[in-house]
Order: sequence, then structure tokens, then C-alpha cells
Amino acid sequence: MSILIKNGRIITAADDYQADIFIEGETISAIGKNLNVQADEIIDASGRLVIPGGIDPHVHLEMPFMGTYSSDNYETGTRAALFGGTTTVIDFVLQTQGKSLQSALDEWKGRSNNNTLGDYSFHMAVTDFNENTRKEIQHMVEVEGITSFKTFMAYKGALMINDSQMVGLMEEVKKYGGLINVHATNGDMIDYLIAKHKAEGKLEPLYHYLSQPEVTEAEASGRFADMANYTGCPGYIVHLTCEGALNAVRNATKRNQNVFVETCIQYLILDASLYEQNFEGAKWVMSPPLREKKDQETLWAGLNQGSVKVVATDHCPFMWEQKLMGKDDFSKIPNGHPAIENRMELLFSEGVNKGKITLNKYVEVACTNAAKIFGMFPKKGTIAIGSDADIVLLDPNEKHIVSAKTHHMNVDYSSYEGWELTGKVKTVLLRGKVVIDNNECKVSKGYGQFIKRKKVQGKI
Amino acid sequence: MSILIKNGRIITAADDYQADIFIEGETISAIGKNLNVQADEIIDASGRLVIPGGIDPHVHLEMPFMGTYSSDNYETGTRAALFGGTTTVIDFVLQTQGKSLQSALDEWKGRSNNNTLGDYSFHMAVTDFNENTRKEIQHMVEVEGITSFKTFMAYKGALMINDSQMVGLMEEVKKYGGLINVHATNGDMIDYLIAKHKAEGKLEPLYHYLSQPEVTEAEASGRFADMANYTGCPGYIVHLTCEGALNAVRNATKRNQNVFVETCIQYLILDASLYEQNFEGAKWVMSPPLREKKDQETLWAGLNQGSVKVVATDHCPFMWEQKLMGKDDFSKIPNGHPAIENRMELLFSEGVNKGKITLNKYVEVACTNAAKIFGMFPKKGTIAIGSDADIVLLDPNEKHIVSAKTHHMNVDYSSYEGWELTGKVKTVLLRGKVVIDNNECKVSKGYGQFIKRKKVQGKI
Amino acid sequence: MSILIKNGRIITAADDYQADIFIEGETISAIGKNLNVQADEIIDASGRLVIPGGIDPHVHLEMPFMGTYSSDNYETGTRAALFGGTTTVIDFVLQTQGKSLQSALDEWKGRSNNNTLGDYSFHMAVTDFNENTRKEIQHMVEVEGITSFKTFMAYKGALMINDSQMVGLMEEVKKYGGLINVHATNGDMIDYLIAKHKAEGKLEPLYHYLSQPEVTEAEASGRFADMANYTGCPGYIVHLTCEGALNAVRNATKRNQNVFVETCIQYLILDASLYEQNFEGAKWVMSPPLREKKDQETLWAGLNQGSVKVVATDHCPFMWEQKLMGKDDFSKIPNGHPAIENRMELLFSEGVNKGKITLNKYVEVACTNAAKIFGMFPKKGTIAIGSDADIVLLDPNEKHIVSAKTHHMNVDYSSYEGWELTGKVKTVLLRGKVVIDNNECKVSKGYGQFIKRKKVQGKI
Amino acid sequence: MSILIKNGRIITAADDYQADIFIEGETISAIGKNLNVQADEIIDASGRLVIPGGIDPHVHLEMPFMGTYSSDNYETGTRAALFGGTTTVIDFVLQTQGKSLQSALDEWKGRSNNNTLGDYSFHMAVTDFNENTRKEIQHMVEVEGITSFKTFMAYKGALMINDSQMVGLMEEVKKYGGLINVHATNGDMIDYLIAKHKAEGKLEPLYHYLSQPEVTEAEASGRFADMANYTGCPGYIVHLTCEGALNAVRNATKRNQNVFVETCIQYLILDASLYEQNFEGAKWVMSPPLREKKDQETLWAGLNQGSVKVVATDHCPFMWEQKLMGKDDFSKIPNGHPAIENRMELLFSEGVNKGKITLNKYVEVACTNAAKIFGMFPKKGTIAIGSDADIVLLDPNEKHIVSAKTHHMNVDYSSYEGWELTGKVKTVLLRGKVVIDNNECKVSKGYGQFIKRKKVQGKI
Repeated sequence: MSILIKNGRIITAADDYQADIFIEGETISAIGKNLNVQADEIIDASGRLVIPGGIDPHVHLEMPFMGTYSSDNYETGTRAALFGGTTTVIDFVLQTQGKSLQSALDEWKGRSNNNTLGDYSFHMAVTDFNENTRKEIQHMVEVEGITSFKTFMAYKGALMINDSQMVGLMEEVKKYGGLINVHATNGDMIDYLIAKHKAEGKLEPLYHYLSQPEVTEAEASGRFADMANYTGCPGYIVHLTCEGALNAVRNATKRNQNVFVETCIQYLILDASLYEQNFEGAKWVMSPPLREKKDQETLWAGLNQGSVKVVATDHCPFMWEQKLMGKDDFSKIPNGHPAIENRMELLFSEGVNKGKITLNKYVEVACTNAAKIFGMFPKKGTIAIGSDADIVLLDPNEKHIVSAKTHHMNVDYSSYEGWELTGKVKTVLLRGKVVIDNNECKVSKGYGQFIKRKKVQGKI
Repeated sequence: MSILIKNGRIITAADDYQADIFIEGETISAIGKNLNVQADEIIDASGRLVIPGGIDPHVHLEMPFMGTYSSDNYETGTRAALFGGTTTVIDFVLQTQGKSLQSALDEWKGRSNNNTLGDYSFHMAVTDFNENTRKEIQHMVEVEGITSFKTFMAYKGALMINDSQMVGLMEEVKKYGGLINVHATNGDMIDYLIAKHKAEGKLEPLYHYLSQPEVTEAEASGRFADMANYTGCPGYIVHLTCEGALNAVRNATKRNQNVFVETCIQYLILDASLYEQNFEGAKWVMSPPLREKKDQETLWAGLNQGSVKVVATDHCPFMWEQKLMGKDDFSKIPNGHPAIENRMELLFSEGVNKGKITLNKYVEVACTNAAKIFGMFPKKGTIAIGSDADIVLLDPNEKHIVSAKTHHMNVDYSSYEGWELTGKVKTVLLRGKVVIDNNECKVSKGYGQFIKRKKVQGKI
Repeated sequence: MSILIKNGRIITAADDYQADIFIEGETISAIGKNLNVQADEIIDASGRLVIPGGIDPHVHLEMPFMGTYSSDNYETGTRAALFGGTTTVIDFVLQTQGKSLQSALDEWKGRSNNNTLGDYSFHMAVTDFNENTRKEIQHMVEVEGITSFKTFMAYKGALMINDSQMVGLMEEVKKYGGLINVHATNGDMIDYLIAKHKAEGKLEPLYHYLSQPEVTEAEASGRFADMANYTGCPGYIVHLTCEGALNAVRNATKRNQNVFVETCIQYLILDASLYEQNFEGAKWVMSPPLREKKDQETLWAGLNQGSVKVVATDHCPFMWEQKLMGKDDFSKIPNGHPAIENRMELLFSEGVNKGKITLNKYVEVACTNAAKIFGMFPKKGTIAIGSDADIVLLDPNEKHIVSAKTHHMNVDYSSYEGWELTGKVKTVLLRGKVVIDNNECKVSKGYGQFIKRKKVQGKI
Repeated sequence: MSILIKNGRIITAADDYQADIFIEGETISAIGKNLNVQADEIIDASGRLVIPGGIDPHVHLEMPFMGTYSSDNYETGTRAALFGGTTTVIDFVLQTQGKSLQSALDEWKGRSNNNTLGDYSFHMAVTDFNENTRKEIQHMVEVEGITSFKTFMAYKGALMINDSQMVGLMEEVKKYGGLINVHATNGDMIDYLIAKHKAEGKLEPLYHYLSQPEVTEAEASGRFADMANYTGCPGYIVHLTCEGALNAVRNATKRNQNVFVETCIQYLILDASLYEQNFEGAKWVMSPPLREKKDQETLWAGLNQGSVKVVATDHCPFMWEQKLMGKDDFSKIPNGHPAIENRMELLFSEGVNKGKITLNKYVEVACTNAAKIFGMFPKKGTIAIGSDADIVLLDPNEKHIVSAKTHHMNVDYSSYEGWELTGKVKTVLLRGKVVIDNNECKVSKGYGQFIKRKKVQGKI
């Protein structure tokens, strides 16, 4: 099977040119002007931007959390991702404290195997680092192809590890060529503030926000950078939201350190004023919470400076009924928001289209850097000879409205309901197959493959 | 005329893959696995790295300076550049104080027109910003294609402009989509120290170094960043050498600013201990001078952090006899060192080969970023469909010795005499023509073209 | 002649206690509970705070400036100072460019000798540092007792010296145990902005403010700190107004540097919103201009942190008619504002009374530190055995209204017209003589003495 | 009973003058030149410096720790303190986790009551903050006169509280006008490193040092500052040792924060090279450990900048036999070193005498600031009318040798054995009584009084 995509404007993290792309089987075999090839299928990309399939390295599908499960399973979640131009996602396996990494991985495989439409991989969340856990690290990296280890500096008693464990894990992970991702907020401070607000009868979603002030994230980000610097282990801060936290990373540059930073699309374009509505604010209850306008400016600047390397989603949707679990107590609102389908179009419309970032930067932070940082490059994340033919055709001018009525995520509200966006994903290929076209999905669950990842070096 | 380069490992700022490149005329028309094309000439690139032609955005050819001329003219300089894998250079036109920009440009055109083998462009050094100069900026950008304006914060009475002029120039340049490059050292402090050392009879090359301490560069870099931030004009610091100066730029990131930084190959790999020899140190008398080991570490880290974007040379060679003008007085030693031919191989051998930077980073800082920052992209700086076929084939394993006996620069010593390097430029193409092969140059002066550059946005 | 001050609450920079003070001749000879002494005169200080005479180290009396003279001469200025509890001032001698320091000193002596009521000293403003000037430094320090040298980084062509001169002066001054005071704003940037605003027809007082943005002061403060650090010369920044500038000094602490900082009373309590009135804003046209609320907070914090060491006035009054010289052009408004009489009461009322600073801090920054930094301690600046009996009795509870109708400065408006203050200077002694009592002045011009000052070490 | 001290040179934190001091009963009643009073006893202070009694706010007497007790009890410890010119100490009560503050206070009172020669107070170490503890805070402040609460960020399972508890405690302490002292090191990181070193068989005292690298202190100091800033509670970092930690505090000045910092005499004058001897290094095993030369420079600069406010000792002596408990395992060496007797003379000899600090600064950091910060001023910490007559006569020129053979501390080695010091404490008065004279102690246990302290404001 071969496909010829003709006349598109091809954008990679580095390049921008007009050409045809020839795909044979699952990979790209030629790129050129007026390619003289015989193709089984021809796609006309005139007027389209042709970009690599998006990679969202931060999603939570069918995740057990706060007594329920996130509402997108591997099928609905990866299907929605494909509709939005994201062809690969990285989900999180969560170790249960007291149990092994392997048992968690087995459980996650049970839910995901043969259930995805898009390609995927796992980060391994280490929630209980001890001598037994230590022994599993090498296997995860070298046999399972799981080279990134997620840590939580919050959620004590469930997910959090302490600084002893963090440093110990870093030393082990470094030894085998892995990387530490971190949820960097000071869980102890947050726990105090939650308890205090509840004791004072302050139970609205607004107090979710006020229980996680900027300092809790700034402090933990700086502490994480200190530990990563001490151990020399590559580190990656997930869902960084604010000026204080990014400044901790910027300060670390002065000791010649390089900490990778991910933000999420919502932190770039939404702000904490949304919490001032009553329970409606529950839609955006996530951790860390939305921040201020000044923080949005910081994050856009961070993308252009190169200090923020990835735009993800932390996609973790819950039905409105699930959100209602916390209608009398913000601390019982399941944390998370749906965005897996919207990320690529939102970032294009709000970022590229409004002149905040260039097209190359768009591809870099939405597709390429995640592949490089997490060991999937050059198979994923770019348009180049030999790479997987994961390709998105985007009409840069088409306007459309975001709505829960039309989206494909399994969640009954949209965080961006009614937003008019400019720029629409029209056609998506995954490994040489058209998976989305004309608003239709062409594949079923089981098409998606698990991606074993390579060791990383902390330099990209 | 068409050329097929077969079986190379192609490296761009973003990508790394095995493929053939097909060149028709001056540009690349196809890239693919086993391209099925008819070519007039086939080059076997097996075992070679295939990278974009290098761009050195900081050279001084046949430049009048300190009563003499730099010893490479446009012919010898660009020929040597080609031998070293650099296909495009940007030279500096120097306004004479009291005269117009145009008259300087005319003079420089007189020396360069039809005299280069490689492609080239000019930065315009504004040494006398006044109401007349102001009126010339638009013409330079829009008609001459000169979109970058060099300023000096040192060399009072000859090249230096003051902060009034700097801010005025920034506002004008910003208006027309240009960029300011700056030699950021505090000329007044340096002048004081030179005079003091001379008054004390301290006349050896070592005192050239001691007259330009780190603070003179750190201070001026911070001051330049302040002015660029105030005016909003894109800024680019040339030949940054030290921790103090880079920290000034890193500090500026916290106000969401983005200042472009160039270092030069010598600051990454040589240090100030070379000045401790007697007059021999004159070989490395340049401004700013070589620094300390800690500064080298900072610069390598800066490349990996993305805070240092370009590795250039500030190539400005002088014959030993010219250097001897200062044998009794360091302040009369013509400033500059030869490196135009060595940069690409030195950076490969000392950077890539020793694991300090990745191959992608190598191409990014030696080829691509300069093209993007200075408005020559995608014509120059990458390997992509439609781009100029400026291509270097590099044998990553070949060892060779640097020596004045074998180099092609018009200067009778080498700053790297006797260094054994790993990695050698074997074949060079410029606009679809083989210009270097097997240590032979295949073109004559006049082949090189002047590149009119585009406006820039300060985002890449 | 002896005086016994009974039952006061004595406050020094360190102490706070109830006692009697016995004065014999010009100095304090005993302090104690119920002192059993025979005194020629007894002053009941019950209910009063008894503090050292204030020292204002930054005043301009009868100063030639912008084609006119500041409206307080040595008589009216020092009399007003006494009324306000300031017993010693330091005025500025301004070298004329092209002439000697000595000739300026002679001129200033001509105006001041035998004309002051209060004690005074001079800073020497070096506006033209050259080999001749260099030779005068030692004489100034060792013979004239002038140990502080004022420099201007602004007012080019009149007062400004460049960085060559600054570094040269620092090295010379350090050699003889002196100190450099600096007006730290980037004069070149300011000159550009003034010219630009004028060219655009923006001529109101507001544009005085907009011509001296925060960056012009932050930049110059950092540059001055860099030069002081390089030379090791003690440095003192006068009239620091803003967060950016104080942060430059705070950053310098990280290299173990200690730069002295003075602010003025107006920057603590007034802000730039005053410029939004039309020409009325001319009352507060001074350089640097008033700043923002955030800057006030920074300055109060700086006092408590110890990073701001002195509160002065930069007293430089002009009659309204003089201010009108600039009614059509802000750049012609004589710069300066009257405060010599108000400083001690304003700082008490707005600082101590509102809980922003402690009583000890009040004395430290209004009296003691200036004496220590500038070599007048322990003769001046404290209440201690052997020190000059310069003493102020302040009623901490008395409320009064500030007004040009009642003040003693020779200027026909007040910058604080109508302000109600709590805390009033009731009685003032200078060298053992009651000079102010019950709102009456008891001495005539000629009573004031010139204070020769000692060398300083940069540590207090 | 009255005493007249004649002809001394009196030094306070602010002043420096020649005078007589007249003491009636326990307090100072007059100071003056040639005081005409009748005294029961006359002390000739010619040639002596007369300074306030030293205050050491960080001592551990008869403290249960690591299975043993520090070897000085309240009698021997305070006697030795008096010999060294320290008239008041603040010791630490340690809450037992699971028990009340009151029960710990009772235990400590049991050991100290009527057993001290010098005056003393307690900090309350809160090692288990919970709802019961919360209720005890007000009582401690308002009834017991214990206004400072010590916290540990290290020693998990024994003394450490987590960040939830820290923030909760801060809010409670702030409410009642108290202050938090903190042992700011990252206990979790340290625990990891100790375990790691032990697992690797690295058991010498050197590994005590290597288990507490600079980052562990820098990180925790920054985190503590963040929490203090968030809550607005006054904070005081005890025994700060290094550049990284002080820079965390200096950085906090930029958000207008003011964190009090204490260092100890040993960190100013000893360095980590002492750990390179074999078990001999156990003499200096303390936490944090000694640091590097660069850190000494930073701390001296900090004193002069005012960022380091107090020089204490952390006196916690152990007999050599006790130290031998750890001869096969550094983690079993009781932490602490003897210095209570040496502090005042060491700081004079190494600081004042070598020109590193002024006499005023000496008194400020060794006597006055501790009294002010901890609510004992003006009763303690100065020489002023009405203050306790706690006075030290010091011969600034007398040379003497430090030795365990002659010291009065109950410990069989000296950390400064054989050091020759210049400047000797000759006579000491405590509350109007000569307690030390001519190397003899004139009082017995029971003379010392417990000092109830006042609320504090965080401004001094």
C-alpha cells in the first residue's frame, strides 16, 4: 500500500517547504517536488499544512482516581486524539503503594492492550520507591521500553514519594538511561491549606484554587531541580503553570543545568477567573489549577525562549455527574479536564494564528520534542525519510466551533464550549494509513500499537 | 545539471535519517530511500554525514582595522571557508563616523563584488547614528537586503555608539523588521584599563586579557539586554565568551525576554592560559579575549540549554608580521584570529565527538540558526526540498592534523597548530555544484553570490 | 554653660530608655536616671522622644542649576532644617568641567562661609575627572576633610562622567579612604527619551517622568555596583527610588558586595500619579522622578532589610515662578523639590507612626547612618557621652498641618500642602545650644560650623 | 550595692565612646565623663573595651540526644559561658513526639531550675505539631514567656516536622507574636545519603560531611523562606553555614522579605578540611557540618551586609568517649562541638582584630541582635540606662592560648586547641555583680535567672 500526498506545505520543527510526500507501507520513503511515483492513493494537500502527527505525552485514560475512573477509556480517548491530530499519547501507569511496578503495568496492559486506535506508550509512576522497586527499574527500561518514571511531590498517602525516595530513584534511573517526570507541587503545604479551608467551611471550587497557590508549585519545582542537579539525573517537570515555577527552572540555568519543562494547553489560554463562578468552576478543577494572566505570558515566553519544551494536556476527563461528587466539598471533585482532542487545534488557533509562536515552534512543542525527550524519535515526531507516516493535514483557515455536542471524547461538557477556532485538522494518517478523514474515523480499536521507547540522554 | 547523493546519513537541526538527495540545478528537489532518478552525477555518501553547508555569520575579510587590513580577502577567505565546510558567511560593513551607511556599503561592495567563491551577506555596522543615518535604515532593509545592524559598545572614537544612539537605532530598526547585533563590552572601562596598564609599563599580550575582565562584558551584555527589552527590538550578542555575560542574558529570561547569543568556536575550546606565554600570546589577541575553563563549561551548557544559539568565528586573521606591530605594546596588536576554515571541524571533533552536543545541535548552531535569525532561511541553513543545495559530506571518523602548512587561509600561523581532529569535511556543494572535493577547490572567485536577506521577527 | 534635659525617652539607633541628659558646653557629658547635677538650664522632656539631631546628607542650597539658583540659600535652608529637626546637612560642591575641584570649593565656601545656622559639610562632585583632578583628591580628603565624591551618570555635557572616569576616580578615592556617591541613572538613554518626547510635542511634566523610566535607574545602579565591585571602592547610591534599582544592589549581595543606598523621603510616600495633573505636576519634577506604589513598598522593605541605609531629601527648592520656566517644555523645569524642613516629621508620621519602621530604625536612617557612612561619627549622629549635643525633642502625639504658609523654607509652595502629620519637633539643640524652641529660632547665621570629615572604610 | 566602672571605652551596637558607668543594684543608672558618684566598688577599666554581656541564643545543655546527654549541664555550661563573656544563653526545650510542649518544658525546668550561674531562656522545639500542640502556643508565649519556636526540617522520626505542620505552626505562632527558628536542612535527602554511605561501607567522619552537602541546606533554607513569606510569620534560620543557603535568603529580599539569619562561630573560622583526618574529625561532627573557604567569605560578608544578624555557637559538647560511640559509624557520633566559652574571644580575635568586622558590628552580632530578635531588649544586650548591668571588660591586646587544659567547659577536648587569640575577657558583671574576675568565678549555681521574653514583631 502506498500513498502520495501532493502539494502540501510541509512543516517540521526545523523546516518549512512545499513538496509531495510518498509513503510506502507504514513509513515515509520519499519527499520531493512533483515526485514521479506510482501511488495506490493520492491525497491532495493543496492549501493544507502538512505536519507530523501530534504527540501528547501526558494523558490519563481509564485511570482509577479518587474512587472513580477518568471517563475516556483507551478506545474513546485515542479515537478523540486522532480526530484532533494527535497520533501518539503517553499514558501513566500508577504503582500501588506496597505493590510492585510490574503488577501495575500488568493491570494497565490489561485495560489498554488491543483497545487503542492510536499509538501509545506508558510512563511508570513510582509511588513507593524501596529496595524492591529499585530492582525493577532496569527491567522497565531495558525490557519493557518504559524509560520515564513519574513521581509525585503531592498526594501524600496515595502517590507522593519523599525526597529520600526521589534522590534514590534518580540515582537508579540515571544509571539505566531513564528520566524522571515530576508533578512538582508541595503536597504537604497543599494538604494543610485544603484542611484549613474545609475547617473554615470554604468548600467551593474556588478553594481548590486557593489551596494550591503559586508558591506551592514554585517551591517544589526548585526543590526538584536541586535534586536533579545533585544526582545528575535528567528531569522533566510536567504541567508547569506559573511564573514562580518557571523562574525556578530559569534560575537553575545559571548553574548550567537543563530541566525539561512541559506545560499544558489550558495553562496557556485559560485563567483562574473561571473559578469565580459557583460550582461551574468544577469543570476546570485540576492540579495544579489555572493561574493568572501574568502566568500565561510567562508560558508563551517560555515556549519562545526554549525553556518550555512541550505542550501537553494532562487529559483526565470526568463526566459532570462525576464532578458532582464534590458539589459540597471541592476536595472531592475529581481532578482533571478534557483536552486530548482539542490541543493541536487550540494551540494552532491561539498560538500560531495569533502570532505568539511560529509554525516551526508549533510542531516542535506539539510533536517533535516529546518524541525526542521520551525516546521515540525519529520513529515518531517528525516528517522525514524512514519515519512513521504519522501525518496531519491541517486547513489553516477553516473556522469551526468547539462543542461537547460534536467532540469525540467521552465526556459531557467541553472546557472550551463555543470557542471559535481558526485552523482545522482535516486528514490524519497513522503509520501510513488514513485514520481520520472528513470528520470520520477509519480505524477501530486494536489499530494502535504500544511503542517501546529508547534510553534518553537528557540532551536533545 | 543534476546530482544524486546516495546513501548518506542526513542530519538537519531536527532530523537524522538515511536517504538519497537529488539535486536539480541549484536546489534540492527530492529526498528519499533509493530514489529512482536519473542524475548527471552520482556521489556516494556511504559512511558520511550529510549536513547543510555551514554558515559563519561573523567574519571580517579584508577589513581595514588598526591601520592595516585583515589578511584574508574575499577570495582567500571564502575559499578557505569552503574547504572547511562553510558555504555562506556574513561579513561586516563598517560605517565611517561622519559618513553615510551607503558610502561604506559602496566601499565594501567594491572589495567583495565578484571576488568571493562562497555565498555571503553583510551586516551593517552603524558607528555613527544620527538623523541622517536614521533615514538610511529603511533602504538598507528593504532595498539592499541588509537586515541586521551591528553596534559596538567599545572602541570609542572609531566604532562605538553611546546609549542614546543605541536606543534610537533600536527603535528605527525595530520599525523595519531588522535586528541589532552588538559587540557588548564596556569600552570606557576597557580604555581606562588599557591606559593604566600602559602607564605602568605592562605591555605584554597578557595585559590585553587583563584589560578586558569578565565584568566589562557582563556589564555591557546586561545593559544591552535592558535597552533591547525597553525598545522591544530583537537583539543578538556576538562573540559572547563568559559566564557573567551569559548570566546577564539568563537573568533577562525572567522578564520574558529573549536575547539571541552567539559564541565563537575559540571560546568553547581555548582558554586564557595561552596568554601566559610571552609574545606568542599575540596569536590569540582578540576582543573579547579568551576566558577561563569555567566559562567554557558555561558556553557548552548554554548551547544545550538553547541560550547560546550560534557558533561563529569572528574570523579576522593577521599575518605574524602584522601581529608584530604590537610587539612592544599589546594595544597595537591587531585584534583577531583565523578560524573560518576550522570552525566546522573543530566543533564536530571537540563537541559532537566528545559527547558535549548532539548531531542535531551541531547542525542547529553551526548552520541553521544563523540562517533563521538573519533572514536567509529556508534558502540557506538546512537540507530540505527547495532549499539551496549547500551540502557538506563529512567523514566522522577520519583523523587529521590542523596546520598552517596545509590550511587555505591567508595567514602564516594556525591557532590550532598540531591539533589532531576526528571528523573531516570531504565534499562540499554550493548551490548544486561541487565546490570542494578531495581537498581540491573546484570553483573560482565570482562563483559566490550576495544574499539579500529578509526581515526578521525575533522569533525562530 | 550647661543644660539638663530631664525625663525624656531617649532613642538612638540601638537603644531606647528613659533618662536625663547632661550637657556641658557643646557636648554630652552624662546620661542617667535622676542625674544629680547642677545645670544652668533645665529642659523638661517628659512625654517627649529625645533623638539625635537629624542629618540630611543630600541637599542643594543656593545651587546654580539650569540657569537659575535653588531658592534656599545657606541661611534660609539651614534655618528651615533646624526647624524640622535636622542639625547637620551635607551640600554638594559642583566642579565646573574644565576647572579644578579647588576653584569650585572656593566658590562654594564663598557662598556658605558664615552663612549657615546649622552645621554642614560638603560632598565634592567630580564632573571632570582627569590627571589634574586626580591630583586634587588626596588634598580634599586629607586637608579639606571632604571624603565623599559625588558622580553623575547623567547630565552629559554638564555633570556626567563616563565609565573610564568613574573607574579611574574610584581607584584614586579608594587609595585615600574616601567614598563615591553616585547619581545612578543612564543619562544617555534619558537624553534620547527627552529629545524624542520633545520632537513629538509631548511637553507636559508627565513626560519628565516618562523620560526616566525605571530601567534607566536600574541599569545604571547595576553598572555602578559592577564598577565599585571591580575596584573595591566603597560606593553610595543617592536618591534610589525603585524596585529595579534596589534589586540591582540586592543581586550584588550574592557576590559578597555591600553598596550603600540612600532613598529620599518623597520616594517613600509620594508616587507618580501626581504627574497626571497638568502643569501642577511641576512641583514634583525632580530626577529621578517619583515612582509607583510597588516601589514605595520596596523602599520601606529595604529600610527594614538594611539594604537602604539613609533617608535624605535631595532638597533643591525652586519658586513657582522658577518652575514656570518650563511651562511649555518639561525639560526646562528646574529639577527639585523642597523637603529639608519636612523630612524628620514626615518619616516619623508616615513611618514610625504607621508601624512601617521602629523608632530605632528611624534614628538609624535619619541620623546615625549618614554620620557613620560619611565620617562624622561619633561627633554627630547619636546621643552618647562626648558626642555633640545635637538633640531633638519630638512630641510623638502632636498633630499639625504642613503648609507653605507656615514653613520656613524659601519657597512659595509645599509638596505636602495640607498633610496632617502626627509628631512634631518641639525643641532642637545644636552643639549644646537651644536653637529651636516653641517654633522660634534662637540663633543667627554664622552659628553653623563646617564639619571636616574622616576617612571611611566602607564598613559601618 | 553600687559599682563604678571608670575610664573604659564603651562599645554598643551603635556607639563607641570613653566614659564611666555607674551601676546601682542590678542595672545601669548613669554613664558619663568623670561621674561624680559614690560607689561601693570601683573598677578601673583603663585600656579595656567595655561591652554588653554576650548573648548566645543557641546552646544545648544537658540535652538528651542520640542516646546520651551533652556533657555540659546548666551549671558547668553557664559557668563556662560567663568565663567567656557570655552572660545570657538560650537553650532548647525539645518536645517528645506524642507528648505535650508543657511536659517537655517541665522536664527542662527540672534540670535547669536553680542550676545556672548565668541568665537563660528557652526556645521551644515543636517536634509534633497537631491540634493539641496548637492549643499550647498561646500559653507558651503569654504565660511562660517563650516566644520562639524551634523547628527541624531534618531528623525524621525524632524531631522533624513536615511542611504541613510547619505552615500550620507558623500561622499559630504569628497570631501570638512569636517567631519560628528553624534547622533548615533537607532531612530526607540527608537520610538517603547517610544510608547510602553506610551501605557502601563509608563510615568515617568525612562521610558525615558528605551526607549533608550544601544543596541540602540551600534547598531547605529556600523552602523555609517560601513558607515564612506565604504565612507572614517572622522566621529565623539557625546555624546557617554556606553560600547556597545565604543566597536563598538574599534572593528572598527581592520579594521584600526579611528572614533573620544566625551563623555560628565555627562556620566563620573552621572549614571542612578538618574532616580529612581520620576519626579525629569526629571533634567537628555537627549538623550542618563545617563548609568551605568560600562559605567563610560569604558569612563574613553576610555580617557586614546585615543579612547575617547573629553569631551563636550551637554549643553541644560531648566527651571524647561519647564521640567514640561512632568510631565505626559516623552516624552514631553524637553531633555537636563545644564553643560556649570561646565564642566572644574567637569572634573578637578573628573578626575585629583581623579587620573583618568593626567593633560596633561585633557587639551587634554577639550581644544586641539576639536580645532584640528574641524579645529580651533592652533588659539585655546593650549598655544603656536602665538595662541590666551585664557588662564585659575585655583587654583587646592580651594574647592567650585556647586549651582543654584551661577551659571551663565539661568536655575533654577543645576544638581550638592551641590557637593563640588576641583579646581576653577580664571581668564580667551580670546584673550588677562581678561574676568573673581575674579568671575566677565569683558566683555559684542559682545565681542565674530565667528570662521571660516579650512578643516579637519581626522588625528590629
